[in-house]
Amino acid sequence: MASSANTRPLKEDNPSFVLRGIHDTYYENRPIPQIGPKDVLIEVKATGICGSDVHYLNHARIGDFVLGEPMVLGHESAGIIHSVGEKVTSLQPGDRVALEPGETCMGCSDCKCGKYNLCPDIIFAATPPNTVGTLARYYKLPADLCYLLPEAVSLEDGAMMEPLSVAVHSVSTLGKLKSGQNVIVFGAGPVGLLIMAVAKALGAKKIVAVDINEERLKFAKQYAATDIFVPPPAEKDESRPDYSQRVAGLLSQSAGLEPRGGNAIDLVLEASGAEVCCQIGLHVIKPGGIYVQVGMGAPNVNLPWYLVCGKELTVLGSFRYGPGDYPMAVSLVSRGLVDLKPLVTHRFKFTDALKAFHITQAGKDEDGKAAIKCVIEGPE
Amino acid sequence: MASSANTRPLKEDNPSFVLRGIHDTYYENRPIPQIGPKDVLIEVKATGICGSDVHYLNHARIGDFVLGEPMVLGHESAGIIHSVGEKVTSLQPGDRVALEPGETCMGCSDCKCGKYNLCPDIIFAATPPNTVGTLARYYKLPADLCYLLPEAVSLEDGAMMEPLSVAVHSVSTLGKLKSGQNVIVFGAGPVGLLIMAVAKALGAKKIVAVDINEERLKFAKQYAATDIFVPPPAEKDESRPDYSQRVAGLLSQSAGLEPRGGNAIDLVLEASGAEVCCQIGLHVIKPGGIYVQVGMGAPNVNLPWYLVCGKELTVLGSFRYGPGDYPMAVSLVSRGLVDLKPLVTHRFKFTDALKAFHITQAGKDEDGKAAIKCVIEGPE
Amino acid sequence: MASSANTRPLKEDNPSFVLRGIHDTYYENRPIPQIGPKDVLIEVKATGICGSDVHYLNHARIGDFVLGEPMVLGHESAGIIHSVGEKVTSLQPGDRVALEPGETCMGCSDCKCGKYNLCPDIIFAATPPNTVGTLARYYKLPADLCYLLPEAVSLEDGAMMEPLSVAVHSVSTLGKLKSGQNVIVFGAGPVGLLIMAVAKALGAKKIVAVDINEERLKFAKQYAATDIFVPPPAEKDESRPDYSQRVAGLLSQSAGLEPRGGNAIDLVLEASGAEVCCQIGLHVIKPGGIYVQVGMGAPNVNLPWYLVCGKELTVLGSFRYGPGDYPMAVSLVSRGLVDLKPLVTHRFKFTDALKAFHITQAGKDEDGKAAIKCVIEGPE
Amino acid sequence: MASSANTRPLKEDNPSFVLRGIHDTYYENRPIPQIGPKDVLIEVKATGICGSDVHYLNHARIGDFVLGEPMVLGHESAGIIHSVGEKVTSLQPGDRVALEPGETCMGCSDCKCGKYNLCPDIIFAATPPNTVGTLARYYKLPADLCYLLPEAVSLEDGAMMEPLSVAVHSVSTLGKLKSGQNVIVFGAGPVGLLIMAVAKALGAKKIVAVDINEERLKFAKQYAATDIFVPPPAEKDESRPDYSQRVAGLLSQSAGLEPRGGNAIDLVLEASGAEVCCQIGLHVIKPGGIYVQVGMGAPNVNLPWYLVCGKELTVLGSFRYGPGDYPMAVSLVSRGLVDLKPLVTHRFKFTDALKAFHITQAGKDEDGKAAIKCVIEGPE
Repeated sequence: MASSANTRPLKEDNPSFVLRGIHDTYYENRPIPQIGPKDVLIEVKATGICGSDVHYLNHARIGDFVLGEPMVLGHESAGIIHSVGEKVTSLQPGDRVALEPGETCMGCSDCKCGKYNLCPDIIFAATPPNTVGTLARYYKLPADLCYLLPEAVSLEDGAMMEPLSVAVHSVSTLGKLKSGQNVIVFGAGPVGLLIMAVAKALGAKKIVAVDINEERLKFAKQYAATDIFVPPPAEKDESRPDYSQRVAGLLSQSAGLEPRGGNAIDLVLEASGAEVCCQIGLHVIKPGGIYVQVGMGAPNVNLPWYLVCGKELTVLGSFRYGPGDYPMAVSLVSRGLVDLKPLVTHRFKFTDALKAFHITQAGKDEDGKAAIKCVIEGPE
Repeated sequence: MASSANTRPLKEDNPSFVLRGIHDTYYENRPIPQIGPKDVLIEVKATGICGSDVHYLNHARIGDFVLGEPMVLGHESAGIIHSVGEKVTSLQPGDRVALEPGETCMGCSDCKCGKYNLCPDIIFAATPPNTVGTLARYYKLPADLCYLLPEAVSLEDGAMMEPLSVAVHSVSTLGKLKSGQNVIVFGAGPVGLLIMAVAKALGAKKIVAVDINEERLKFAKQYAATDIFVPPPAEKDESRPDYSQRVAGLLSQSAGLEPRGGNAIDLVLEASGAEVCCQIGLHVIKPGGIYVQVGMGAPNVNLPWYLVCGKELTVLGSFRYGPGDYPMAVSLVSRGLVDLKPLVTHRFKFTDALKAFHITQAGKDEDGKAAIKCVIEGPE
Repeated sequence: MASSANTRPLKEDNPSFVLRGIHDTYYENRPIPQIGPKDVLIEVKATGICGSDVHYLNHARIGDFVLGEPMVLGHESAGIIHSVGEKVTSLQPGDRVALEPGETCMGCSDCKCGKYNLCPDIIFAATPPNTVGTLARYYKLPADLCYLLPEAVSLEDGAMMEPLSVAVHSVSTLGKLKSGQNVIVFGAGPVGLLIMAVAKALGAKKIVAVDINEERLKFAKQYAATDIFVPPPAEKDESRPDYSQRVAGLLSQSAGLEPRGGNAIDLVLEASGAEVCCQIGLHVIKPGGIYVQVGMGAPNVNLPWYLVCGKELTVLGSFRYGPGDYPMAVSLVSRGLVDLKPLVTHRFKFTDALKAFHITQAGKDEDGKAAIKCVIEGPE
Repeated sequence: MASSANTRPLKEDNPSFVLRGIHDTYYENRPIPQIGPKDVLIEVKATGICGSDVHYLNHARIGDFVLGEPMVLGHESAGIIHSVGEKVTSLQPGDRVALEPGETCMGCSDCKCGKYNLCPDIIFAATPPNTVGTLARYYKLPADLCYLLPEAVSLEDGAMMEPLSVAVHSVSTLGKLKSGQNVIVFGAGPVGLLIMAVAKALGAKKIVAVDINEERLKFAKQYAATDIFVPPPAEKDESRPDYSQRVAGLLSQSAGLEPRGGNAIDLVLEASGAEVCCQIGLHVIKPGGIYVQVGMGAPNVNLPWYLVCGKELTVLGSFRYGPGDYPMAVSLVSRGLVDLKPLVTHRFKFTDALKAFHITQAGKDEDGKAAIKCVIEGPE
């Protein structure tokens, strides 16, 4: 419908929230992206802030991804289609969409075999050496990376499809959770909570949440967890391996876990990145179980490796999301199986973007109210 | 054929090689096992010695498996069927068979779903609290754990089916090696060599062997490896993570490896149990690759865990063997795709069993000749 | 608790409902089964009647399974453990259990690799040459084929676990249904309805039910289907292939199906056995979809085979149930995700067993009330 | 090496072999294709003729693919890179490559999830409504659909990678053949022979070839089959189902097959498209086996469908090839595991293209010599 392409007015500026160095951010008017024949131009309407965004703010790098040129921040977004390339038939101006913010080559063997998240040439929003992100008025993507939001799903929900897809990838695509299985989730931050929500939506029986923050766990219990657990401090002189094994025992007792059978842990989802959680996870999982590492956490960890052999475990790394993850995320929300609304605790104008970063980092606002997910509106 | 059951004479004694404590072994005449309706009685004719046997000799335990009552040693064996239970139709006296030495309950959920190696009630030869092993005149097994040896396959080859099944389980059942893929094998001891042999038989393109023992590697190169590599010593003050990453680079250069594509490592088989090898393995594997941990090695290891996520790896523990592994092992040998003969370097009379343990431990005999696999004949 | 083993009195008789030939049934007092060390003796309390039971009544055979000796009928049952063999630790007298009525050898390669339903030596209740079935006071099974019923699950529900496991096997184990996928179910008889129930429990989005019986479809709609469809009669002179293709088009239109994407049929469950349904199923399924044949129906069918290639379909035969199916069935019911109660339309005393067969066959009772599942109580 | 990009002269014409209607072909000078940034321009050097090419010549259609505009024929080709688009780094002018002749959208859910052969927007050489094919001087493709040929692999071999990839897709990707398994191949034409070659390369134990043409079978036996079988004619008054079942019995006897175990058929590859072969295939396959339908054959076939359920078979349609198939094809040939040379029986100048079609159709040349694969050189 070429005519409708003209119905949305194009503003002349493209205000963008830019990171130049550690704690060095500013607003800038950047050129409006030019779209190719299979691309669409999106007016960004909502952007969630993620731990990795805050990490860039604080360190100007994550691992080998080092900030070079000034970079627009933001990668968890939804918006409205402004215009579409000449070969795009699946979308039209005015459509409300969630954005999958990683464009891949679709020509390498990883892309071809259904693992495009491993593409070496992926261009990911707000990830160096890429210099663009979604905290701007306009963003460009191939049309096939935009997912239509049903009417019942808000743009704010749409912005949450990115972390929800991380959870879907871990729980469903990799973890292959089946109805009635038991899972344990380490970390009750936004990703951990979304993992619990997906596990619940897919019929997990027991969902044990582990965190050191009791308040987060309280929320987790109301939201999706069936059992919660705070690891006690280590005893004096207790070695790390001894501690982990002891805590695993306490945890099992507390949550009514058994080593095998209907009350055993079938699936571990490690989203804290904490070494001790990795260790506990390997202790509490049943023989033949699946352990998915979601948070990257510390680069080097010490693990009770004999358990991987002795229990013949499957240990899977989870990196972003791949084919089918966004569609399932949208589907779960649109059918009411996952409720994203309780997670958005704070909302900000585009001009207050930095505040969203600070509150995300603090984990609470000035009034002491816990922050789970901060969402920033698009520019006016 | 009940009549044929009577054709093999039954000797009246059952000489057995028993371990009572650390370095405390003796011969004993044990009662001849009584067979049930689905069992067979086997005259053991050849038994290989494995590192775990030597470990029991030296420590009277492996991890949680602690020697209690005196135990007959030996679990890698082949023999001749002496007699069969009344419900056995698949075998008859005189048949030459390889023994799968783990009897499982076949009623638990692991046994039922095709993972009988995870059965909590497995009774494994020469593994406490079980007190019997195959270093005896007679051994009893359910008939379905005995695998007929074709004429071309010797009883000595038959004894090697046990470690060969470990290799098949790792390379094929878990590693799912496809023709043309590249593998790296850490550890060039008996299991590592058998892993290389299976990889070669299944069509691996590049088979890189890594060990600190150059002599072993020389043998590996003649036997099945396409490339070999000895890690250099660490630099002074070099941290372990730095060392592993550096060695991974040297290894890649030496073997012509690339991070992706047709010269990348698709499959890591870690059969050394050495921490540094685990680390190198995670560095050299391609994104999306499969890493199989075969040797249990050190209980706790420090790992570059970020690579598991960043490359979205599949890490699998390999524990013994399961359905289909023995049949494939026998098939590979009987079709000439795996040659076991070069691996049997030393042979012993039953009355010299202890010597086989000592030479296995030393890795060479009194004349300095390298020992790969020591095989003990059955009692006369 | 050995003591409790003595608390249930053993009645001295074992009244059984026996089939001797076509429409030739009678009651007989058969010997009480002797249990082995791993067996349990069950007091049968509820038995559902299935189309195959009726088929034996009418034909004294199903395919190659031909009645020889008089045979006790019945295979969909639940009951109470009367006594347990000496090696049984998982159950005790008084336990309420669902019965999986197929005992397999657990020694053949099919049993070992997780496909025990393919065991050539399976002994299945009320299936020649076996002569026993569950329509008796007592029934014997290996303990591992009895599944504990949670308190909230009735014995009548327990009797339905057998056909529910058929549904679980088709939808989950073979069909691998994922939340949000669309399914079509041909046949709205008991198995078809249970398939719909499982599909709903596992999160299917669209569940299209097809049958020629409008009343059944009305029930299906209330019970679990989202869409229903009655194929219109064929046009005069319309060829069968043309008819099937036309009906597939009408069906797609009626249920809002599209050939690909979120409104396409991901999974076909053919439980009618009708040739025309097989044909329609191949037409409406999306490329790359999974088609599961559940009902055996007519022995020879004419199929638009070019679609199997052209759409690169996966076509799977479903035979009974295997590892994990009963546990998932019990779990779905105990968590309230599947409600079996609406399906039991008629209940009978043991002495009225034949009546249950007749009403099952007629599909309705003397008052014209539709019969879905008839359940017979155990003997008094 | 940008400089080499200029070293290959561009001829000014693009002679092409065109089909306008049934048996209506002619040569035409078509415009040289313009390449995009990710494309390459290939000088076609060798093109094999396939049954589908002949079918278009005879019928101007295959199923729903109906010739509209005049279309260049040919899709099994190899050639030399003439020039590359500005974004192409993997290839350079002068490179010898095999061509994968289907360009897909790489944006739909099928393309993304690793099944690009199901892409609804695939543009396939010499397949309407596409009007170009490889029987021309120049052909254009995305660079990632060109596969480098190692030095040892000739361009003629390269042209055979297309049908070889069909075989790899059937035997390995779908059939998941494991070393030591037994296969039966129906049809000993070019695709059937290549299937046998792949099965042999991947370690099949028994490879039973079935065809009605004894000469073809004789060749198959020399080439890759271990057993061959010619179905006898049907008895007078013998029904088709009876005939198929009887022939299956004879075949089993002839090839020493058993219903289960080490001499059973694990994998059926049906490449004849003949109804009776489909039927026999379902009879001879073992319970739990995999049946792959490769040739599309007759649109409607009558099948003993009860076997699909009763044996719980996996029936898979095979459509062209997907990710990894061309790489494995090239790898098998370059490592000497598949020898393509014996299959190329006839070679033609570009100007004699029609003759290649006629001899392919006849199955033999004017001198009566059997034709397996006819290959046409590129234009001079």
